[in-house]
Amino acid sequence: MRLVRLGPAGTETPGVLVDDDVFVDLSDVTPDFDEAFFASGALASLATIVADRVSAGRTEPVGDRRFGAPIARPHQILCIGLNYRDHAAETGQAVPTEPILFTKAPNTLVGPDDDVLIPRGSHKTDWEVELGIVIGRHSSYLADETEAEASIAGYVLVNDVSEREWQLERNGQWSKGKSAPTFNPAGPYLVTPDEIGDVLDLDMWLDIDGTRRQDGSTSTMIFSPAFIVHYLSQFLALEPGDLINTGTPPGVGMGRSPQVFLRGGETMTLGITRLGTQTQRVVAHPAAVG
Amino acid sequence: MRLVRLGPAGTETPGVLVDDDVFVDLSDVTPDFDEAFFASGALASLATIVADRVSAGRTEPVGDRRFGAPIARPHQILCIGLNYRDHAAETGQAVPTEPILFTKAPNTLVGPDDDVLIPRGSHKTDWEVELGIVIGRHSSYLADETEAEASIAGYVLVNDVSEREWQLERNGQWSKGKSAPTFNPAGPYLVTPDEIGDVLDLDMWLDIDGTRRQDGSTSTMIFSPAFIVHYLSQFLALEPGDLINTGTPPGVGMGRSPQVFLRGGETMTLGITRLGTQTQRVVAHPAAVG
Repeated sequence: MRLVRLGPAGTETPGVLVDDDVFVDLSDVTPDFDEAFFASGALASLATIVADRVSAGRTEPVGDRRFGAPIARPHQILCIGLNYRDHAAETGQAVPTEPILFTKAPNTLVGPDDDVLIPRGSHKTDWEVELGIVIGRHSSYLADETEAEASIAGYVLVNDVSEREWQLERNGQWSKGKSAPTFNPAGPYLVTPDEIGDVLDLDMWLDIDGTRRQDGSTSTMIFSPAFIVHYLSQFLALEPGDLINTGTPPGVGMGRSPQVFLRGGETMTLGITRLGTQTQRVVAHPAAVG
Repeated sequence: MRLVRLGPAGTETPGVLVDDDVFVDLSDVTPDFDEAFFASGALASLATIVADRVSAGRTEPVGDRRFGAPIARPHQILCIGLNYRDHAAETGQAVPTEPILFTKAPNTLVGPDDDVLIPRGSHKTDWEVELGIVIGRHSSYLADETEAEASIAGYVLVNDVSEREWQLERNGQWSKGKSAPTFNPAGPYLVTPDEIGDVLDLDMWLDIDGTRRQDGSTSTMIFSPAFIVHYLSQFLALEPGDLINTGTPPGVGMGRSPQVFLRGGETMTLGITRLGTQTQRVVAHPAAVG
């Protein structure tokens, strides 16, 4: 199943895609794909509801509706750093022996094709195509990776937009450079695990103005989604609807020589196998420093 | 005004204290002291409502009601590291030239007198008495500290419980050691700025089993609340009801020689001038490693 939230920002309608251009409206089933929805276990009953509505002809064209992020603003956005062997090498850093955890402000979440704003005073805004995990139930001290897999509601394409000076050169702790408004495009849809295939064999890519910048595969991930979810649950409690960004493959602007950062006016396009594509216009804050 | 949330965890009643033992129930005015409440601006009208109800005799004894955290689970909990000159010296680290930002999971928030759980596998659970700031309105790119002061709904006593091994020895980024369940007792009340006096002249202390461990004053803060709120708003958007823990004075267990950490069975008592006191029982997770 592919869950979507369609319509204007802040008033999206929850639904399920039947094909790329047709969806079933589920706004009478749940007000949103939020913490309460995932906590209720209602995800398990959606397939039957959708099948019934398709049989009854209760489908609608997507038309020109905006895609929002496929989940409501989550309780938390957690991120794993340096989780691709080839990206760790690119940044000159050692392969981590256990996951590096950092966070993004939850209000960074925007739709897959919304504008990305270069924040005021930014010199080094950068891109990161990533596989996102959406948590399906309260998860604390999970026993093993099998339990962790059962805690995963689905996967989503994200762009973990990052300000490198703020992340790395402004007195430590990466969250400072990860949390500016619009810094977490997500979507176009949440894909349930049964439709993802082998999550450790997905191609992922990101272009800036049509030039390929990132070209990787989840096959070079160091810590798998199941490992990450089990691991994190030992340190904190994951809530239904939480989002975990699992790290980026090589090709970020910081990793190039010379380094390349966004200035405004660019178009970012990115995608992951079976998770769809995103297209964002990069808009410089009027006072952003180029 | 002193805002409180009274009653069992998860079903607290919002109210305002009239004196230490008497309160006005406001559950018909707002369902909770949450993001929607602060965003609505309703805080500004509470004083009149409370005065009217006191005149009409509509008050109730606190009795044996539990104090919850005085705010609902916030959108985010932000923390400032090493923000006291004497604490930075104690840990052997340089005084920061600008605020260090890290985060705690929002679901760490518990009441001021709830149990604190030493997480499974913990060796180094530690305490930190702190002044917390509660944000009153959406705040992005605030112009100056005057605007920042207007964004502060009030102040609250917090214990920024920390697992030092997880914070500092498990592959970087402090959030990993700051986010275990029950790691953020807050309360007993939110005090509005008009009743706090000079926020940079508040005594603060923390005892373990009756022995004074922390004894400090907000007068040794490096970055003031107004500075912090203005600063953070340049990097991310603060939402109504967000909590900011502003750092701890000297006396944490990590800073002692030899170091001292919680093992379970201790009682923590802490307080800040005009922000009340907290008493927590420390309970070891059955599998916590002593």
